[in-house]
Amino acid sequence: MRFSRGRNFLFRVPEGEELLKFINEFAKKNNVLIGTVSAIGTLKNPKIGYFDEKNQKYMVIELRGTYELVSLTGNISIRDGEPFAHVHVALGDSKGVLYGGHLIEGEVFVAEVFIGELLGEPLERKPQKSGLTLWDEVRI
Amino acid sequence: MRFSRGRNFLFRVPEGEELLKFINEFAKKNNVLIGTVSAIGTLKNPKIGYFDEKNQKYMVIELRGTYELVSLTGNISIRDGEPFAHVHVALGDSKGVLYGGHLIEGEVFVAEVFIGELLGEPLERKPQKSGLTLWDEVRI
Amino acid sequence: MRFSRGRNFLFRVPEGEELLKFINEFAKKNNVLIGTVSAIGTLKNPKIGYFDEKNQKYMVIELRGTYELVSLTGNISIRDGEPFAHVHVALGDSKGVLYGGHLIEGEVFVAEVFIGELLGEPLERKPQKSGLTLWDEVRI
Repeated sequence: MRFSRGRNFLFRVPEGEELLKFINEFAKKNNVLIGTVSAIGTLKNPKIGYFDEKNQKYMVIELRGTYELVSLTGNISIRDGEPFAHVHVALGDSKGVLYGGHLIEGEVFVAEVFIGELLGEPLERKPQKSGLTLWDEVRI
Repeated sequence: MRFSRGRNFLFRVPEGEELLKFINEFAKKNNVLIGTVSAIGTLKNPKIGYFDEKNQKYMVIELRGTYELVSLTGNISIRDGEPFAHVHVALGDSKGVLYGGHLIEGEVFVAEVFIGELLGEPLERKPQKSGLTLWDEVRI
Repeated sequence: MRFSRGRNFLFRVPEGEELLKFINEFAKKNNVLIGTVSAIGTLKNPKIGYFDEKNQKYMVIELRGTYELVSLTGNISIRDGEPFAHVHVALGDSKGVLYGGHLIEGEVFVAEVFIGELLGEPLERKPQKSGLTLWDEVRI
């Protein structure tokens, strides 16, 4: 749970890319195994998830149209042996009303992404009874 | 106002903990006196505050049920001689509608927290006429 | 697109300042040419933008009153030869309802800002056909 700082990446994702897939591919190609992620921009037709405990899966909320990516916040760690980005997003419509949740996918119009690599012991997601894949809980 | 980088913590808060209390205890036990905080996850029955200038106190907004923690953004500094986390949150319901404000409390279902320690001159909150406890203003 | 870490600034913006102007002036006076920015606080009468692709300009959404600054997320890079902050905000009203988009301006009641300087090759915004000023796209 304690890490040192690695590399820092600040970049624009090409228009038309699917944002989550791109972040995961970026992490994989650059061998970023642990890190923090944040971004702003504009997304088209984003799909976001709300975790439904009873049914142990994400309910999918499909938004149509173009939304300001007001915040993207999350992290990178290992799932199934590969770097995996878990990110949540807030999205604004043309009236400034916000929607958000767990990012499932979104087409990039603009995305300015910061990844801060962390170095240390492997941080791995493991399947839980809840249906989620999570790190071990920290103890203080 | 200028700091060097200290330790970096990325961890999952145990399910059932109260998030703000846990972050404050984590900071205290690890002696993190200054830092930045961000997180994502899922919270139950969160209480958020909106500062009411006229009455010089937070109005409390109690949300019932389970919300995606879309963003948690804030910092750690000293208040009353102890590390104190000041964090704001955006929370998404099952339709993806967002609510948010100053985090007062929230029960953790999932919380993935990043704390980036900063090292330097003490950064302390002091009571203000407004009723808030704030750092001195910077001058540029 | 790859940077090393520079200085770290955590500070409170004086009450009454216009937030975006202050961040830009802070960056200029401290010679922060590249970086990440995040903040929380409370803003008065914020103006936010939603980018209208068809008309190639931001539609302006004027909010009246006092809003919790639930998140401010963004970056600093060079535009027209000077440091330029591009930031998006989520803003909460007294019921906890969130609004947000591209920050155009907002009067500070409270603003606690973190700037993480990045050092490396110049990162510059250039005018695009869309009407936006953006960095070159990254290739992976």
